[in-house]
Amino acid sequence: MTRYGPMFGPDITFLGVERCDLDDVDSYAGADVVILGAPFDGGTSHRPGARFGPSAIRQACYLPHDGSRPSLALRVDALQDLQVLDAGDVETYAGDIEGSLRAIEEAVARISASGAVPFVLGGDHTIALPDATGVARHHGFGRISMVHFDAHADTGDVEFGHLHGHGQPMRRLIESGAIRGDRFLQIGLRGYWPGPEILDWMAGQSMRSYEMTEVVTRGLDTCLTEAYGIALDDCDGVYLSVDVDVCDPGHAPGTGTPEPGGLTARQLLDAVRRTCFELPVVGVEVVEVAPPYDHAEITAYLGNRVVLEALSAMARRRKDAAGGVRWDPSRPLLDGR
Amino acid sequence: MTRYGPMFGPDITFLGVERCDLDDVDSYAGADVVILGAPFDGGTSHRPGARFGPSAIRQACYLPHDGSRPSLALRVDALQDLQVLDAGDVETYAGDIEGSLRAIEEAVARISASGAVPFVLGGDHTIALPDATGVARHHGFGRISMVHFDAHADTGDVEFGHLHGHGQPMRRLIESGAIRGDRFLQIGLRGYWPGPEILDWMAGQSMRSYEMTEVVTRGLDTCLTEAYGIALDDCDGVYLSVDVDVCDPGHAPGTGTPEPGGLTARQLLDAVRRTCFELPVVGVEVVEVAPPYDHAEITAYLGNRVVLEALSAMARRRKDAAGGVRWDPSRPLLDGR
Amino acid sequence: MTRYGPMFGPDITFLGVERCDLDDVDSYAGADVVILGAPFDGGTSHRPGARFGPSAIRQACYLPHDGSRPSLALRVDALQDLQVLDAGDVETYAGDIEGSLRAIEEAVARISASGAVPFVLGGDHTIALPDATGVARHHGFGRISMVHFDAHADTGDVEFGHLHGHGQPMRRLIESGAIRGDRFLQIGLRGYWPGPEILDWMAGQSMRSYEMTEVVTRGLDTCLTEAYGIALDDCDGVYLSVDVDVCDPGHAPGTGTPEPGGLTARQLLDAVRRTCFELPVVGVEVVEVAPPYDHAEITAYLGNRVVLEALSAMARRRKDAAGGVRWDPSRPLLDGR
Amino acid sequence: MTRYGPMFGPDITFLGVERCDLDDVDSYAGADVVILGAPFDGGTSHRPGARFGPSAIRQACYLPHDGSRPSLALRVDALQDLQVLDAGDVETYAGDIEGSLRAIEEAVARISASGAVPFVLGGDHTIALPDATGVARHHGFGRISMVHFDAHADTGDVEFGHLHGHGQPMRRLIESGAIRGDRFLQIGLRGYWPGPEILDWMAGQSMRSYEMTEVVTRGLDTCLTEAYGIALDDCDGVYLSVDVDVCDPGHAPGTGTPEPGGLTARQLLDAVRRTCFELPVVGVEVVEVAPPYDHAEITAYLGNRVVLEALSAMARRRKDAAGGVRWDPSRPLLDGR
Amino acid sequence: MTRYGPMFGPDITFLGVERCDLDDVDSYAGADVVILGAPFDGGTSHRPGARFGPSAIRQACYLPHDGSRPSLALRVDALQDLQVLDAGDVETYAGDIEGSLRAIEEAVARISASGAVPFVLGGDHTIALPDATGVARHHGFGRISMVHFDAHADTGDVEFGHLHGHGQPMRRLIESGAIRGDRFLQIGLRGYWPGPEILDWMAGQSMRSYEMTEVVTRGLDTCLTEAYGIALDDCDGVYLSVDVDVCDPGHAPGTGTPEPGGLTARQLLDAVRRTCFELPVVGVEVVEVAPPYDHAEITAYLGNRVVLEALSAMARRRKDAAGGVRWDPSRPLLDGR
Amino acid sequence: MTRYGPMFGPDITFLGVERCDLDDVDSYAGADVVILGAPFDGGTSHRPGARFGPSAIRQACYLPHDGSRPSLALRVDALQDLQVLDAGDVETYAGDIEGSLRAIEEAVARISASGAVPFVLGGDHTIALPDATGVARHHGFGRISMVHFDAHADTGDVEFGHLHGHGQPMRRLIESGAIRGDRFLQIGLRGYWPGPEILDWMAGQSMRSYEMTEVVTRGLDTCLTEAYGIALDDCDGVYLSVDVDVCDPGHAPGTGTPEPGGLTARQLLDAVRRTCFELPVVGVEVVEVAPPYDHAEITAYLGNRVVLEALSAMARRRKDAAGGVRWDPSRPLLDGR
Repeated sequence: MTRYGPMFGPDITFLGVERCDLDDVDSYAGADVVILGAPFDGGTSHRPGARFGPSAIRQACYLPHDGSRPSLALRVDALQDLQVLDAGDVETYAGDIEGSLRAIEEAVARISASGAVPFVLGGDHTIALPDATGVARHHGFGRISMVHFDAHADTGDVEFGHLHGHGQPMRRLIESGAIRGDRFLQIGLRGYWPGPEILDWMAGQSMRSYEMTEVVTRGLDTCLTEAYGIALDDCDGVYLSVDVDVCDPGHAPGTGTPEPGGLTARQLLDAVRRTCFELPVVGVEVVEVAPPYDHAEITAYLGNRVVLEALSAMARRRKDAAGGVRWDPSRPLLDGR
Repeated sequence: MTRYGPMFGPDITFLGVERCDLDDVDSYAGADVVILGAPFDGGTSHRPGARFGPSAIRQACYLPHDGSRPSLALRVDALQDLQVLDAGDVETYAGDIEGSLRAIEEAVARISASGAVPFVLGGDHTIALPDATGVARHHGFGRISMVHFDAHADTGDVEFGHLHGHGQPMRRLIESGAIRGDRFLQIGLRGYWPGPEILDWMAGQSMRSYEMTEVVTRGLDTCLTEAYGIALDDCDGVYLSVDVDVCDPGHAPGTGTPEPGGLTARQLLDAVRRTCFELPVVGVEVVEVAPPYDHAEITAYLGNRVVLEALSAMARRRKDAAGGVRWDPSRPLLDGR
Repeated sequence: MTRYGPMFGPDITFLGVERCDLDDVDSYAGADVVILGAPFDGGTSHRPGARFGPSAIRQACYLPHDGSRPSLALRVDALQDLQVLDAGDVETYAGDIEGSLRAIEEAVARISASGAVPFVLGGDHTIALPDATGVARHHGFGRISMVHFDAHADTGDVEFGHLHGHGQPMRRLIESGAIRGDRFLQIGLRGYWPGPEILDWMAGQSMRSYEMTEVVTRGLDTCLTEAYGIALDDCDGVYLSVDVDVCDPGHAPGTGTPEPGGLTARQLLDAVRRTCFELPVVGVEVVEVAPPYDHAEITAYLGNRVVLEALSAMARRRKDAAGGVRWDPSRPLLDGR
Repeated sequence: MTRYGPMFGPDITFLGVERCDLDDVDSYAGADVVILGAPFDGGTSHRPGARFGPSAIRQACYLPHDGSRPSLALRVDALQDLQVLDAGDVETYAGDIEGSLRAIEEAVARISASGAVPFVLGGDHTIALPDATGVARHHGFGRISMVHFDAHADTGDVEFGHLHGHGQPMRRLIESGAIRGDRFLQIGLRGYWPGPEILDWMAGQSMRSYEMTEVVTRGLDTCLTEAYGIALDDCDGVYLSVDVDVCDPGHAPGTGTPEPGGLTARQLLDAVRRTCFELPVVGVEVVEVAPPYDHAEITAYLGNRVVLEALSAMARRRKDAAGGVRWDPSRPLLDGR
Repeated sequence: MTRYGPMFGPDITFLGVERCDLDDVDSYAGADVVILGAPFDGGTSHRPGARFGPSAIRQACYLPHDGSRPSLALRVDALQDLQVLDAGDVETYAGDIEGSLRAIEEAVARISASGAVPFVLGGDHTIALPDATGVARHHGFGRISMVHFDAHADTGDVEFGHLHGHGQPMRRLIESGAIRGDRFLQIGLRGYWPGPEILDWMAGQSMRSYEMTEVVTRGLDTCLTEAYGIALDDCDGVYLSVDVDVCDPGHAPGTGTPEPGGLTARQLLDAVRRTCFELPVVGVEVVEVAPPYDHAEITAYLGNRVVLEALSAMARRRKDAAGGVRWDPSRPLLDGR
Repeated sequence: MTRYGPMFGPDITFLGVERCDLDDVDSYAGADVVILGAPFDGGTSHRPGARFGPSAIRQACYLPHDGSRPSLALRVDALQDLQVLDAGDVETYAGDIEGSLRAIEEAVARISASGAVPFVLGGDHTIALPDATGVARHHGFGRISMVHFDAHADTGDVEFGHLHGHGQPMRRLIESGAIRGDRFLQIGLRGYWPGPEILDWMAGQSMRSYEMTEVVTRGLDTCLTEAYGIALDDCDGVYLSVDVDVCDPGHAPGTGTPEPGGLTARQLLDAVRRTCFELPVVGVEVVEVAPPYDHAEITAYLGNRVVLEALSAMARRRKDAAGGVRWDPSRPLLDGR
């Protein structure tokens, strides 16, 4: 499991942060966050291309790739205030879904075992299974809750004759016990999948899924506050899964299964910020950025900013916990926040 | 008027629903909804391409084309709960606007006469004239109101020396008496057309047009509620006309005459849902999807989802009318709604 | 400084308004507004192409180029009610930033000196320095305030070893005294630039910068009302600078340094309208429209509509000042507003 | 028939040449060539968009729009050496093919009557009928031959129930006697249309059609030389019709009915040059440039260069006829040719 | 193995030919050619998307989908003169390469067993293994030769730790004995893969590979004639494999691993024609059309025309064999050929 | 002059070759070739974007970035057989053409002084002046000839009021004496620039310019052979300048000033190969790759392959000189060449 990456472009790191090598424990000892690419799109049911997601998300920025990004909103520089390393990509192969999932789970587990937060760049959503399982292996099966932004529930059973694919990871995680069904918080669902049978199964697992109708009717912030309460109930940590298709296709065209009527980019960024600022996040993934369908890097930029927003909120959470002035979103930028 | 379609792509149906043939009355007897393509863009004043709209709207989905789409939001499967058939495209010719309009009106009239709701996929907005006229021939001139989502009033008089075109159908409908001017509800108007003379004519007809300024100031839901009240006043049914350019170009780039500052896709879907859930809709059209200007099928997907949203709301309206629990948008998805 | 324009396309005017020649004072004597293209993108730090902005903004409309645009929202025809002329482009050269800035400043100063409002179409944001300086030379250094819509503060000091570039004009304006730091109102900032050192400098200048977090938390209209109060305090006029990247990339993909999480097009249009309706605007610029990265002219159309919205609001402000019924945004379109 | 153009963009001229007005005979008296836009695409059987062809062809150049283009190859400056004027666009309407064709024919006829060569920018190929008819009205029915570069024979009879469309003009021209069937020289045909019945009709008319197989087997220059011999036999002039789809889609993607396996751009330019240098051309059209399907203006540039190549060759033909050194393509550029 | 297709679009057939069902032998008994989609791209090493190849190739045509395509060049209507059926797509899953290959091989074998020519639309080139194996199971291992147009030799051994992928099928075919190494004719190779070790293996198998340098130096037709001689030596039939990346990226941008410097579309069409006209072809595949990277359907059209060219040449071969006048490429189109 | 690069993307090297630092002479001592990025596009007269050329050219490949590229055609692995290093980008600023040119010239001169061949990735063609001057400073003014592939002569005098820009470097090089006018070999010129005055100046300098007409008439290889004779006459080395716009826009759409009618990609690759195989090349540049206008990386791939072709030919030239079998382009690939 040496550093990998050259198949889908040059071997770069997220905005220029330092490299580490998962085969060399010392190289990431003490890291706060380890970024990992999972360029796998063999589980996509429709438009492929998320294999280029890790490369695109790492690069999509007009600022220098210098390992520093001071957040205007949060007044921290996550890439500096936290020790953020990039372990490169896991070697995966679209044609071998099971082997790829094993490799990803092992890589994530190593990161979690080191005490760092694994931050996985997908790839299609199939990887949620190894990602969250790898985290759960360290934090305990059933001890982490899942905050899941997505247009789709991803709770399919067997698709194309297989147990694994980008529409099924959440079911597999519940079945294995890695994450309790009643600690699944899904935000942004909409559209025409799944059907009643699967919804019944989900209800039977006591999942809590906020379809867009409810989000619009009650307000996103209200829904999030309620969800956070559930997420913290008898769990030690939170896994955050962000499928970029939770946003409206106008804000995220570069994805495999776009569903009109989603969140704005602004809403997603604010929701990710709240999640990582208010909850003890122990793992994150950003998935389904599919560059072949992107335009002018809109979606890649959004993916990059979701990563930065999550990291910045984690950094601010730590800073506030260390005794600073608690962050106040209504204060003017130049008053110091 | 046999099934037609092969000129602008293969002969497919909307997401795989069954076919019918307008020349064979038995083939659509008892249908609830008959989908009809009107691939005409000879009336477009600027960017053409809406001729490929019917094909794009029918196909734009990442799910199997299996004639089933269970709505998460509304908990119905409109393509199953209603009998929805697809009659293919009306044969039209861009260079012959009058002949094309005659053919479309005749096809729509046949559908209405059968008792089914004609659901027309445009094509440019020129087709609103034959579409609504065809419906009015069955339901009675002056007996249906018009709920019209659009950036443009489409009340032009003579353009390019002709009475027909995509900027004029609403005037022609009022002039013919098919639809009363004071039962025209227009939502989403904005921009720099038409000028005072036409606006005066519109006022003289007692049309009710909600320009975006009013929509923003008073709120879309408030405006809709008010409009619905007018629509139901002394009318037997409602014709719903959705011009995809009512949405902001960021949400619907693939259209002929984009006007910045429109609705979001989420707003449009919710408004279409309310219209078809709260009102007795007897005809629908979705127009001005112009694939040559689309990116990653954003606009085609939106068109497809507008169709499904309308059909799902019709199905739910019928279900609730049949004595079920009335649909509650604030209930959680997994509580059954 | 004769009329120029043919390098980046044919010599056209904004939607067909009349031409003037800055070398011929009589040609624009008495004008209310003079449009000027500044096709300079030599100061762009990332994606270039804004040199084609003036041409794209002038053309992006589906209506005839006839020098007339009656605003539905405001019920004025700015291109007719005001005397709006187009002076063509200033000749600039990407490779010579200092010479280009001199030429732009001189052209703007001539327009201001004539009593007209210079309306500059960029080009990258570097041109804010000569634009606002040219205006200040007429209205007095320190006598105009700045309302600045942007994702970026543009207060960098030295970048690439140079004092001038699209990230620095606001600092240069404050340093020169052209505009007082405490009369800078910035709306829409977000992202990861600048860092603490520059933010401290900004705070030291008493700038007032509304980062998106504050905009979302307090509401855009609240922020604008507050900002307008500052802008009018001991100043004689307002310079309005609109960087199209203040909008979310989904609404404005065609720009050089896109930053996710911005305003919608609707919000920007409404904010520009309020600014020009409520404040005594003496100069305007619309910058950073970069056509090579646009899709289906989305961003060019937005730029065009920002220009029209600003002009229409100026015209309505004048009309209301002349004693008409004050414009009421909540009145129905057909009630005459 | 005043100058028209503003519907599909601003009123510009081909690379900045002088304007004329077809309603004002004096404005084009003595002209050698009059350029005319025919932005009609209502006859397109598949992908529309050629309405934007005249605008795109006029503009697609990286050099200043200054009415001068010295040809490296031919050592003439056609826009200066000839008097080339631009009459703007004929007003056409996609939805009214017959009215549009009448307007085009009348405009072309006026130009021909003045003694100038009409140079028509399409538009779809439907316009070949009015274009060539307008020329034949002056030069005599049956007195001009047709050199026709195209992937398609355009000899269809009735399509979509109509006599007119972009696949039928050549049949109509033969039927009317405007051009003799045995003076039709078609180069570049290929693909799967028309079928045997129409081919038999063509053979019956003694048309001479060089399908790509023959072009490849015998060589393009050999075929051209043979064709020129026929063209000059008992005819007084030649009408040159260039459908850009004669080129391979890789060289001309922006067109409505692309057919793989065509000429290279180089071959087309050389063939146009030979035609206009060696034959007495009395009318030219360049059609089927459809900007919505173009990329990076490849096809628009090709259209622009076809126009310049034709004009330059006409200028050189005249220059050599005036007694200069005959142009020698094998001489080095800097030896003066 | 029922008809499949709806996942990647609606269930259509190649240009409207009749359907058959591989589970129903009677449905294709007596067919000359059975078209089969293999929408598998799980073996792609770089840009995915070829899963949409079968749908794109089937549709890419501006003519009606009426199951008739009279070839101008060859004067046959292959879709009518031959019995051509379309069996739909094989169900494959990107994440399961081995299962997918089994399903494809089985489907192809059924077609071959029926006596028809299987014509497979890819999909990535991985499918050459099951395609050619399925054919060899009927015609005999070692009894068919391979004519292979490609930029790449596809003779890799283990890639990504797997034996199967789009760079390895030709090695697997030789290893299994399905096709003799010395009956492999590769045309169009170029670029920087594979390295010496694999080239040595290829030489050891006595493969005959025409790299572009040789093709340019000796001429394509000379190379083909030589290759055909080898292909016919002690073999009973020929399998034709066309990877669209054999063409230059300018002619075929929509592919996964583009390599500059390839054939023109014209050259490929002519070479495919010669192959199917001069040799006893018993199986064909067209692979690596990847629509996400295509522009204006250039590559999809090319794929469609490669299919038609192959079918037309087969039909003409049969016609000439039946005693007609042998086809003469240098005869004029209208002389009947 | 430390390594630079992060402004326009991450700091990568050409296909993964080793890095060097121009400030550390030891880091490139003994290198055969040093690659240098010159991301400057401030001299572009029309479409900018070549600043992203170095990044795009370095990355555009579907093979692993492993510093190895065995050429099929030439049977060498240039990145291994030669010592090829990548010095990163020179820091340039579009707005400061003179400072940028100084920085580039100094960097190139350092490389030349070390004995290595500088291989510069542009950027626009402005950089030919510092590139060739930097080389001439080492090899002697007047001692190197120039082989120049381009659509444009680039011999303009003053443009936009400046001596420097992408249309003028060749004139400046002749004026300074860096390269003798009569040792300038230009291949591929065409179009409508420059005019007679500049052509006369060129003739006066005894430049030898092969316009496309001559290339087509006499054949590219004949022209090259003649040009090589001149290049070697009383010169010690050759500088090779490749402007990607020498190719037809169909083969190279991603460039700033496209001119239809150029070489195919195949022709360019073969010509570059011959140049570097037959001549003693001491410097190379590949310029005018402008990614914003590219599609599916067609042009970036071409740029990458031009670099590899040049390097491979240099490696093969050295190998043959060392006493091997001389490379024979007509030998089969698998016979070892």
